[in-house]
Amino acid sequence: MDRDFMRLLDSRWEQGLFLCVGLDPGYEKIPQSVRSSSVEETFLTFNKAIIDATKDIVCAFKPNPAFYEAQGIEGWKALQSTVDYIHAVAPDVPVILDAKRGDIGNTNVDYAKMAFDNFGADAITVQPYAGGEALEPFLDRSDKGVFVLVRTSNGGAREFQDLEIGGKKLYEIVSGATVGWNKNGNVGVVVGTTYPKEIGEVRAIVGDMPILMPGVGAQGGDLEESVRLGKNSKGKGFIINVSRAVIFASQKDDFAEAARAKSQELHSAIQKAL
Amino acid sequence: MDRDFMRLLDSRWEQGLFLCVGLDPGYEKIPQSVRSSSVEETFLTFNKAIIDATKDIVCAFKPNPAFYEAQGIEGWKALQSTVDYIHAVAPDVPVILDAKRGDIGNTNVDYAKMAFDNFGADAITVQPYAGGEALEPFLDRSDKGVFVLVRTSNGGAREFQDLEIGGKKLYEIVSGATVGWNKNGNVGVVVGTTYPKEIGEVRAIVGDMPILMPGVGAQGGDLEESVRLGKNSKGKGFIINVSRAVIFASQKDDFAEAARAKSQELHSAIQKAL
Repeated sequence: MDRDFMRLLDSRWEQGLFLCVGLDPGYEKIPQSVRSSSVEETFLTFNKAIIDATKDIVCAFKPNPAFYEAQGIEGWKALQSTVDYIHAVAPDVPVILDAKRGDIGNTNVDYAKMAFDNFGADAITVQPYAGGEALEPFLDRSDKGVFVLVRTSNGGAREFQDLEIGGKKLYEIVSGATVGWNKNGNVGVVVGTTYPKEIGEVRAIVGDMPILMPGVGAQGGDLEESVRLGKNSKGKGFIINVSRAVIFASQKDDFAEAARAKSQELHSAIQKAL
Repeated sequence: MDRDFMRLLDSRWEQGLFLCVGLDPGYEKIPQSVRSSSVEETFLTFNKAIIDATKDIVCAFKPNPAFYEAQGIEGWKALQSTVDYIHAVAPDVPVILDAKRGDIGNTNVDYAKMAFDNFGADAITVQPYAGGEALEPFLDRSDKGVFVLVRTSNGGAREFQDLEIGGKKLYEIVSGATVGWNKNGNVGVVVGTTYPKEIGEVRAIVGDMPILMPGVGAQGGDLEESVRLGKNSKGKGFIINVSRAVIFASQKDDFAEAARAKSQELHSAIQKAL
């Protein structure tokens, strides 16, 4: 059977798994013992250790291409090898490319090709600003997930996302629009755990659609409230992403064990909050 | 003297040059005679011919990474080689990386590194949705240009960009915000030529700041109106980008001559409209 993002994700949820580990390496933060002269080798060795240590307790892995692109061609190769490695050792775990891409439709055809055909990612995060028409090349890929930025996790998110239009905030309007875009059942939204109240509001708008929630850990998001307000009517439908707090739980040689311990702690906290 | 985007751009404007050629190759559209088994070589050979044929009549080149990323590592290498080639043969022509990136601040640090340090681009296009705080890693680079998407050129642009907040449309509010972000004099906005009326409205908001205007050619934008409404108080301050209509003016062996002829035609049309 061909890979299908929503089926893979739902199967992880059925196993009680809701944690997503963000594979966002930074060369300077990687333990000395792992670093080689090659950035590609360094990133891949580091990521492999994190993937091996956490693959049985996550619902997804989420590499953000920014951290790879910053390293040029070697970084790009490391991202490709990382996705390939996940598919090889954890074929049941979907890969969300957190690329936050967004262009006009003609150009998004090529971004979809990049994410889904070239990297083999199962899902991508995208920008809402150009509207649903521009996102069609992503939305049309019914076997792939499309997570639309609705409420970002940063401090300045309110600047535009909280603007009020006829009594509704912009992020609520964008949330509502994603429901209409979900003709293939492959659309989700992104709402930061740094805004738990807004997670509840978005949940009321999007029904049972998946919500990807970044921001727990380094950004200080509220895990318990986010789970409580973010779960859908079936007690599923959400992804808690943690990046830095897991992968850099230790910056010493025990980084993989520390990443697993932190992941288990987060997994338990999610279970408790459910 | 170190490269500085605004100085380079202003110097081109002083020479009466306002056309930007979008280097957005597609493997299938490139003439058979140029194609080799290597995508990297094919893209670079094609781009070099376009660059050589147009470099004296453009104010900037604007590669969109989507078209390169879709081709994987070979595409990425071709993008790097293309920017390097422009710097080598046309050091006075700034390079705008039309990457439309946008993430939280911590991640945008790496996107800025990608665009400015890794590729050596002089400017980048960015997403407004996460607000000005998230864009600081780009804005802080005073020698680099930051073009904020305000009004995209696609048919569906109105969906969110035309939403009204207290009598103002979202794209007007975003335009106003960019003025506040322009502390280093390195900020511009993007408004599609498919919406000339909106170009005039944005010009009234942003004063003399640069406006990058895509959409002439394949997308059917209105060049004359866009120039008339888009120029600033000094009769400068705008960039007319044309991609497909120039680089694929002919899909035969005379593609470079055809690209030059089309560029000259557009240059003349801009002069006439000024």
